[in-house]
Amino acid sequence: MAGVPFSPEDSRDEVPEVVVSRLPQYLRILNRLMEDGIMVVSSQQLGEKLQVTPAQIRKDLSYFGRFGKQGRGYSVRDLLDRLRQILGVNAYWNVAVVGVGRLGRAIVNYPGFNPDGFHLVAAFDINEDVIGQDVGGLTVHSLDDLRRVVTERNISIAIVAVPVSHTQEVVDLLVACGVRAILNYAPIIPHVREGVRIRNIDPVLSLQSMTYYINSSVEE
Amino acid sequence: MAGVPFSPEDSRDEVPEVVVSRLPQYLRILNRLMEDGIMVVSSQQLGEKLQVTPAQIRKDLSYFGRFGKQGRGYSVRDLLDRLRQILGVNAYWNVAVVGVGRLGRAIVNYPGFNPDGFHLVAAFDINEDVIGQDVGGLTVHSLDDLRRVVTERNISIAIVAVPVSHTQEVVDLLVACGVRAILNYAPIIPHVREGVRIRNIDPVLSLQSMTYYINSSVEE
Repeated sequence: MAGVPFSPEDSRDEVPEVVVSRLPQYLRILNRLMEDGIMVVSSQQLGEKLQVTPAQIRKDLSYFGRFGKQGRGYSVRDLLDRLRQILGVNAYWNVAVVGVGRLGRAIVNYPGFNPDGFHLVAAFDINEDVIGQDVGGLTVHSLDDLRRVVTERNISIAIVAVPVSHTQEVVDLLVACGVRAILNYAPIIPHVREGVRIRNIDPVLSLQSMTYYINSSVEE
Repeated sequence: MAGVPFSPEDSRDEVPEVVVSRLPQYLRILNRLMEDGIMVVSSQQLGEKLQVTPAQIRKDLSYFGRFGKQGRGYSVRDLLDRLRQILGVNAYWNVAVVGVGRLGRAIVNYPGFNPDGFHLVAAFDINEDVIGQDVGGLTVHSLDDLRRVVTERNISIAIVAVPVSHTQEVVDLLVACGVRAILNYAPIIPHVREGVRIRNIDPVLSLQSMTYYINSSVEE
């Protein structure tokens, strides 16, 4: 893996998960700075954009090596290159979708995955009526074929779009078949064993962060 | 609005948007502490859970009044009550869904909104074939009826699930009709005028925060 050429002293196991979950936001901001032709950015400036203290920025980034020098700021390009490598953004990922009901079909047709290197290459369902059907260019497989297809297509990521009642069971099966990262759309938080990652799409968190403003202005 | 009974000195306009977007996470953590019977929490402990510095925690929470005392920690119950008020979590919100294709139908049937006070009360589409149909118990209206229905049903929040090519246009229409907060599922970032809030469901950010780990372990 050519992902991380420098800083062999990194011990990635020690990077807290919430720090990792913030990195894509850094990536977006740095991409924007790069587009705007900005070459150097301070932890102060990054902190203003993310509304965290400069010390927090420095702490987050310190997990991944030594960037920039005290008082001179970070090179936008270096930081961007490094974050891209760390996050595997330049890589090509094969992704499976489990559940091809309304939501699963919407996911298969979502145009946002491909440009960022996430390629939906297989779809699965338990419903006999849809197995064998074509959904957005993918043949729907039975879950019985999961292990074989995951291995053959080198799938390390799965998107789960099944009802709450089946979510944990499907997640367990994916993990047993070697899937390492799961994006879950059901409104529960499934358990996974250590070493497997899961993220939950949670639209309620987004809604709650907006009701603040509606509350606020009603008062005025 | 009985939302914020104390701290009349708050000037909410000055709270940075990214701080507000972190508040639902505080809420979840505090709910969990409360369930575990924990009465007092320090900024150090909250910082460990969110992996931010204690200073960052104190700074975030200081926007909303004075909680706890130096060296004595925060009362979990007081902080929770305050955040619930601030975020309008105890309120009841009427929500419209625009676009009842695959994704919109999945959203209408999503069981996660209702328990948190978000009630989907109206659905809209531009497709003549679906207008008048029943989708998950909601009659699909024409967008021509948007203004009337938004007013009649006191709708302040909309969820947009239309193709990228129509997203900005629909967002503009919603704003023109008085909607104040929009949750967008299309993979673009629509523009809204000041005073209107928008959040984008971005599954790619979630995926990117997991590829770190796959990258990482391939190296080992």
